[in-house]
Amino acid sequence: MDWKPVKQQYKTYHQQIIDWFTERIACGDFLPGMKCPTQRALALQFEVNRSTINTAMEELKANGLLETRVGAGTFIAENPWPHLLVHPKWQQHINASIHKPNIETIQLINDYEQREDIIRLGTGELAPELLPTKQLEDSLKLIKLPSRAIGYSEPQGHLALRESLCNHLHKRDIDTTPDNILIVSGALQAFQLIALGLLERGSLVFQQPASYLNSIHPFQSAGMQMVDLDLQSNIVEALQRTKKNRPAIVYSIPTLDNPTGRNWSQTDKVSIYEACKKLSIPILEDDVYGELQFEESNELPIKTLDTTGHVLYTGSVSKTISPGLRIGWVVGPKTVIQRLADIKMQTDYGSSALSQAVVTHWLTSGLYDQHLKNLKVSLQQRARYMEQLLECDFKDIATWETPIGGFYIWVRFEQPVITKALFLAVLEHKILINPGYIYQPNDFHHLRLSYAYASFEQMEKGLQLLAKMIKKLLLAEIS
Amino acid sequence: MDWKPVKQQYKTYHQQIIDWFTERIACGDFLPGMKCPTQRALALQFEVNRSTINTAMEELKANGLLETRVGAGTFIAENPWPHLLVHPKWQQHINASIHKPNIETIQLINDYEQREDIIRLGTGELAPELLPTKQLEDSLKLIKLPSRAIGYSEPQGHLALRESLCNHLHKRDIDTTPDNILIVSGALQAFQLIALGLLERGSLVFQQPASYLNSIHPFQSAGMQMVDLDLQSNIVEALQRTKKNRPAIVYSIPTLDNPTGRNWSQTDKVSIYEACKKLSIPILEDDVYGELQFEESNELPIKTLDTTGHVLYTGSVSKTISPGLRIGWVVGPKTVIQRLADIKMQTDYGSSALSQAVVTHWLTSGLYDQHLKNLKVSLQQRARYMEQLLECDFKDIATWETPIGGFYIWVRFEQPVITKALFLAVLEHKILINPGYIYQPNDFHHLRLSYAYASFEQMEKGLQLLAKMIKKLLLAEIS
Repeated sequence: MDWKPVKQQYKTYHQQIIDWFTERIACGDFLPGMKCPTQRALALQFEVNRSTINTAMEELKANGLLETRVGAGTFIAENPWPHLLVHPKWQQHINASIHKPNIETIQLINDYEQREDIIRLGTGELAPELLPTKQLEDSLKLIKLPSRAIGYSEPQGHLALRESLCNHLHKRDIDTTPDNILIVSGALQAFQLIALGLLERGSLVFQQPASYLNSIHPFQSAGMQMVDLDLQSNIVEALQRTKKNRPAIVYSIPTLDNPTGRNWSQTDKVSIYEACKKLSIPILEDDVYGELQFEESNELPIKTLDTTGHVLYTGSVSKTISPGLRIGWVVGPKTVIQRLADIKMQTDYGSSALSQAVVTHWLTSGLYDQHLKNLKVSLQQRARYMEQLLECDFKDIATWETPIGGFYIWVRFEQPVITKALFLAVLEHKILINPGYIYQPNDFHHLRLSYAYASFEQMEKGLQLLAKMIKKLLLAEIS
Repeated sequence: MDWKPVKQQYKTYHQQIIDWFTERIACGDFLPGMKCPTQRALALQFEVNRSTINTAMEELKANGLLETRVGAGTFIAENPWPHLLVHPKWQQHINASIHKPNIETIQLINDYEQREDIIRLGTGELAPELLPTKQLEDSLKLIKLPSRAIGYSEPQGHLALRESLCNHLHKRDIDTTPDNILIVSGALQAFQLIALGLLERGSLVFQQPASYLNSIHPFQSAGMQMVDLDLQSNIVEALQRTKKNRPAIVYSIPTLDNPTGRNWSQTDKVSIYEACKKLSIPILEDDVYGELQFEESNELPIKTLDTTGHVLYTGSVSKTISPGLRIGWVVGPKTVIQRLADIKMQTDYGSSALSQAVVTHWLTSGLYDQHLKNLKVSLQQRARYMEQLLECDFKDIATWETPIGGFYIWVRFEQPVITKALFLAVLEHKILINPGYIYQPNDFHHLRLSYAYASFEQMEKGLQLLAKMIKKLLLAEIS
């Protein structure tokens, strides 16, 4: 019992004490009938006045959680449960509701990513030192807010932003118009809108076997079924065989795929586009890493092949400027974009006007391009460093490809060692990894490393420890 | 044929010409077999070089939309349709998908609200001159962005914002902790998350007969059924009779209800809370207008009665600072808040970091309170003015209550004149109204007026014209 109330602006000491007692009773720490310490003892222990303890105890009695037995003192009520259980059966509501919870490993990752003292070896996010914090702050000083812009948004997002995106997308060889663009709060929201607005329950979502989509589930939660698609096969046949008469969509990250970091070959892009055209299947192309290719390459999106309105193309600034802006976009046929805009208006009434104004400023002022150039240099340095570390510690137990851009190295271990047990064991050492099984269920051979987040020192420390732990595991198995 | 291509940064002339031809053919303006004008004539008409026309025509031929007959000229292809119809059957996808579209009147309202030349008599939004644009711009200059803050958000939103909200909510007599708060992108998103994360399909959502929820449909689209709840009845009995064994939630705006503008009596609040407690039904309390009561009153949220974790309370800055910020909050039991945070992370990875930083600054610096004070004065002046206009023009055909806060006057006409035909007729005069049937299906007696948006001049002009049109209708019916 080392808890004590602390000074909080929004919660009095006695309320904190009531909550603490209630929680202890609710979770079974204090059992019915147990005798309470005296008020004097509690006052001493909590370092508060006796009158505070008294107020708390009286309220707890009024709530039926404590009871006084004359001459014997105060006790946890014999039957406090009904009082604790008046609240709606929230857990029952949660279990029965529509949306799937994140799988436990991902919930743990989300939680531990908030902690300062953790080495994050797999995080799909730029390190604080790679974020253009200072430039963003400076640009805030230059932003002009037309009054209309801070009112409710136009359904498709600010026109100025959509116009500047037309120019911007031109660099990826995409020619489009503001009417064909919807501004979203990050690419993930685009998936959500597509799931709700374009697909019916039971639709199929074709994807690569190792897929970012398996680590989130906007489609699964909306009642869609994920199906692996092998690019090596005859695609038309493969799609047709599985699809039969069901509606379907193909999800792909052809440039700097997440988690594998690979680019699709041009042949693969053409094959998938032609197959989808033939079978009237829309393609959802996720290009959030597309601008992070280290070399000036000609790897262009599938969208550039699209003369028939089959491809919904998504991008965002989350991997380039900052995920905190929550700005992304979808490019597609006008009817589809209008439909998605209508759903977006029903979902959150548009994206932050401030964020839209800042991104417009960055795209039109040249800040974006300048920052991107520097960022790619930093990322490539980090990629090289991480690969050197892998060469040292992992060469004999794993393989990988040299990164050509983006954030990730998809490391393959010969033995199936990347298990939940390993995830938890390294977490005890304050190291967070993204195991392959998040992206490909039941795959215990892969690890998604990210060189975007951890510092050089953290990479070194983290990877050394990880190598040591895995090698120990392997030895244990041999012996 | 008065169209011509215009200089656009992102689209060449010949691409514009191709698109224009394609659209004309697709929509049936140009019929199969029709002869095209000569290239010379087209060049003249479009004010472009002949080579531009030539490039466009060649591509249209390659696409199978035009065909050349030797010696006779160029014609629209006899069978262009298959070429136009290769794209996926988007409309079919849209029709079959999960989310309901907005009803047509609301889609029209959303669209026309974007136009500069429209008088908006019903808009639920502050007029540009009531938005603190200048102060917002000034405050942007003071914002400090810690790097972590512009990374991916903590699942429940920035801690600093949640802490400042604890103090802020205290003014509405709500005592809570940062752990019990989820930051959302406006209250509408809260509904969406609750629909997906706490309710199962087929759940009932009890609401007032005239309800804001009927004008959006986060719950209906998620498969929930809306049920009217009469506060005059025996609530326990009414809930029980309809609910039977189905899961349910009660939605309410007890302070400055939308659309009626009314406050619930304290008795009604206690009755609903006690009834829900008895039946273990959660209450969703929408308090987005709560701070806009003109008089310092003691009208407090139902949440202040809640000792048992039944009430999910939502608020936002959309009606006070600016809807463009997209910041709102939900207050509830910790387990529920964590669940909603998990779904939010899966939906859009959190709200804009910039918007969160700005709102934190406004709440902690006193800017918010100062602005709110001035805003209420302006709103009350506008309310008085609108009521004077109503006294002049509507006294003999309608009734209403003097507004006590918020944005709205819920006008009741003796005759059922507020029809879709009237909506469209006044729209022709560039006046946008929010008919009662948006909030209460098949109610043609009510009109939701808003004094928050239109200028004094617009109110006068708009209401005079509206009165004239309605009176004409009434006369026509008598004669």
